[in-house]
Amino acid sequence: MESLLKAIEGIVGPANVLRGDDVAARRVDWMSGAPCRAAAILRPASTEELAAVMMKCHAAGQPVVTHGGLTGLVHGAEADADELVISLERMTAIEALDPVGGTLTAQAGAPLQAVQEAAMEAGMQFPLDLGARGSCTIGGNIATNAGGVRVIRYGMMRQQVLGLEAVLADGRVVSSMNRMLKNNAGFDLKQLFIGSEGTLGIITRAVLRLQPLQPVSQTALVACADFTALTGLLQHVRRTLGEQLSAFEVMWRSHYALLTEESCRHAPPLPSDFPFYALIESLGSDATESAQRFETAIESAFEAGLLSDAAVASSEQQRERLWAIREDIEGLLHHIAPRFAFDISLPIADMEDYVQALERAVSARWPEGRIVVFGHLGDGNLHVTVGTGHDDAETRRAVEALVYEPLAALGGSISAEHGIGIEKRDYLHLSRSPEEIALMRTLKQALDPKGLLNRHKVLPDIAE
Amino acid sequence: MESLLKAIEGIVGPANVLRGDDVAARRVDWMSGAPCRAAAILRPASTEELAAVMMKCHAAGQPVVTHGGLTGLVHGAEADADELVISLERMTAIEALDPVGGTLTAQAGAPLQAVQEAAMEAGMQFPLDLGARGSCTIGGNIATNAGGVRVIRYGMMRQQVLGLEAVLADGRVVSSMNRMLKNNAGFDLKQLFIGSEGTLGIITRAVLRLQPLQPVSQTALVACADFTALTGLLQHVRRTLGEQLSAFEVMWRSHYALLTEESCRHAPPLPSDFPFYALIESLGSDATESAQRFETAIESAFEAGLLSDAAVASSEQQRERLWAIREDIEGLLHHIAPRFAFDISLPIADMEDYVQALERAVSARWPEGRIVVFGHLGDGNLHVTVGTGHDDAETRRAVEALVYEPLAALGGSISAEHGIGIEKRDYLHLSRSPEEIALMRTLKQALDPKGLLNRHKVLPDIAE
Repeated sequence: MESLLKAIEGIVGPANVLRGDDVAARRVDWMSGAPCRAAAILRPASTEELAAVMMKCHAAGQPVVTHGGLTGLVHGAEADADELVISLERMTAIEALDPVGGTLTAQAGAPLQAVQEAAMEAGMQFPLDLGARGSCTIGGNIATNAGGVRVIRYGMMRQQVLGLEAVLADGRVVSSMNRMLKNNAGFDLKQLFIGSEGTLGIITRAVLRLQPLQPVSQTALVACADFTALTGLLQHVRRTLGEQLSAFEVMWRSHYALLTEESCRHAPPLPSDFPFYALIESLGSDATESAQRFETAIESAFEAGLLSDAAVASSEQQRERLWAIREDIEGLLHHIAPRFAFDISLPIADMEDYVQALERAVSARWPEGRIVVFGHLGDGNLHVTVGTGHDDAETRRAVEALVYEPLAALGGSISAEHGIGIEKRDYLHLSRSPEEIALMRTLKQALDPKGLLNRHKVLPDIAE
Repeated sequence: MESLLKAIEGIVGPANVLRGDDVAARRVDWMSGAPCRAAAILRPASTEELAAVMMKCHAAGQPVVTHGGLTGLVHGAEADADELVISLERMTAIEALDPVGGTLTAQAGAPLQAVQEAAMEAGMQFPLDLGARGSCTIGGNIATNAGGVRVIRYGMMRQQVLGLEAVLADGRVVSSMNRMLKNNAGFDLKQLFIGSEGTLGIITRAVLRLQPLQPVSQTALVACADFTALTGLLQHVRRTLGEQLSAFEVMWRSHYALLTEESCRHAPPLPSDFPFYALIESLGSDATESAQRFETAIESAFEAGLLSDAAVASSEQQRERLWAIREDIEGLLHHIAPRFAFDISLPIADMEDYVQALERAVSARWPEGRIVVFGHLGDGNLHVTVGTGHDDAETRRAVEALVYEPLAALGGSISAEHGIGIEKRDYLHLSRSPEEIALMRTLKQALDPKGLLNRHKVLPDIAE
């Protein structure tokens, strides 16, 4: 290892091979605060340096773990003591912005927020958005195919990527820095690297698609009397707001009541005794038209009996207050501790029954247990938090079984947007067939035959 | 071969193994009308039958070519006399439609138009649209990542696919029939099969994403004084129409003048002496709002000097007349014969210079030569037709060199939406690097090591 690190120092410079306390001071998991255990952290300044580093690692059979903004939730950044971490923290440049073509070119380590701000300065927008925007990186967003709150309108990260550059396990650079919306010249290789959590290559640069700025937002918190009304409301606002609909975030009563009345963290804009709440947002370009359309949509939903109460934001401050309830993850974590948190997707039509069955199962096993549910309804994505009073490994396994196992029969997914990492790999078979997992292994074997990139992540280890 | 065909008859039934005249009667290329030369055409009725057929073919080392609607433009459906054709023509079922989740499940052989109509009946839309809609199939659309006229708003076929099922070269079935908008449980395997032109697997079923119906359309044909005004206009309507903008189709004067004045095929809605014409369309849900927004967009473009003349359709009949000019491929082919047709993409900012240089180069070499240009400007996609008076192989090579070679320096693509097939494989290196082509070969080798699926397509043959 030491001679390898010396050789790598020759490539990136001694100051960019961190060791000892500099490694341990780094937190690889923002939930647990666990320290980094890698032998060293390498900080290349360019694709060329990274390629040279990977050639050395490949020759030495040295496994590596790639680090972006360290905001992942499935332990994807964990590294063993015999592994090296590749951090993209010095590759943060926004290299180009083409306002005519509507593209932005960035290095993988650029924070999401920096990309959003650069687009905004050019009078456009980069629409992917999530709470970790200040820390998470574009490379991490791509490697995990990040979702967030605007998927219903703009899609996930995969849809924002036009071109990509990656370094393979053996140090070869595959550069597909396409800037066009359309390019059917051969296989679309970038798709391999998007969402595969760094197991097939290390993303170094990307061409991102920008969207026209939509500066006018309308926001309302509404309450629904039952799940049928809630899904009817979703269809109603899809039809009436059309593509201005940019968010349809749902809170089960368990979530809304906890963060308003029960915890006193937020003044409740609506009474907390309705079974469902939805935060509806539209984005548009014309203030008058946008406001009028939104008002009409809410009013006609009332008349159709799809919603029972509503609070429409009439100022930016009010808008922020409504979102603050939905985004108060800290409050949620504080009041349900210890807890297990999940990110699942399933057909919308199955959601009500699924949640009710889970509530019954948790109560039956842990009479003091509770579950809190919110999520991106339009995307089929629920975030489920389960508190049982315990946080031992056995309880975790029992809760995981209750949450994950019913998904198989529904064609649901054990991971809607957070990925698999280490946390969910043993449940991958519930969402993917043996043939699918075999094909994933075929790809891993073809691209990284020595198994050097993000070992033990995504795919379950093969039993010896 | 004969014993293999007997075995296959046992799987699909003798009536579904076509031979002799039934094979030769089938046209594999709608431009040339070339007949099918395969040893037989196999017509499985289900994924299971196809899987059983491929197991037999795999064991026998028998290469196959997959047929959808046979509307491709790059000879992707051609088969040699020692190959078997797999036709999906009996797998045309629309299996399910979920209005709440907004998904439609279909077999690969379902025609695009049947899917569009099924969505419409459910009060939704399937937004992919192209001229071949009545013949082309969903499986073919996916295998070639079809584009069409609404990419600027809805993206290409890749963005419409949520789930996919494919049969691998060895007969294994990989079923990833995901119905959710979000699913990050492991590698997104469907991406491998989308746009790889049947070389990695045979697509059998898909889950498609539906969109809210946008029943109100506004259409205008406008003329621009120069390319700067044209790109300014694109940015202007993107901003003012927002996501209602559903088409921004551009005709160079060469195209518009040919199909109106010169050929007398269409009465010219605008004089034919402007350098550029754009067909602008918006799709919305509210008739009044949509019309008003469109009118404002066109008027303010006038005031800003971005357009010089405009004809706004005030009836469905007028709308059809405007589109008829743009979509009159038959007229184009009739008046430029013989001709070579191309489908390229390049950064919008480089288009004007590229076309001018190509015009000069064609004129210099063939004084009677002419080029006609139209395309999807917002997508960076141009369709270029070159007539030289000759159609021999040498002229073809010379024209291809003039069209394709300048694209390499611009980061352009030799195929925006038609794919590579056989026609463009020898030029793939102009759009993709040696490292990219090597990685494509790695994937082909991993998924189809015997090279049975669509031989000689997409990837250039390796020199012996």
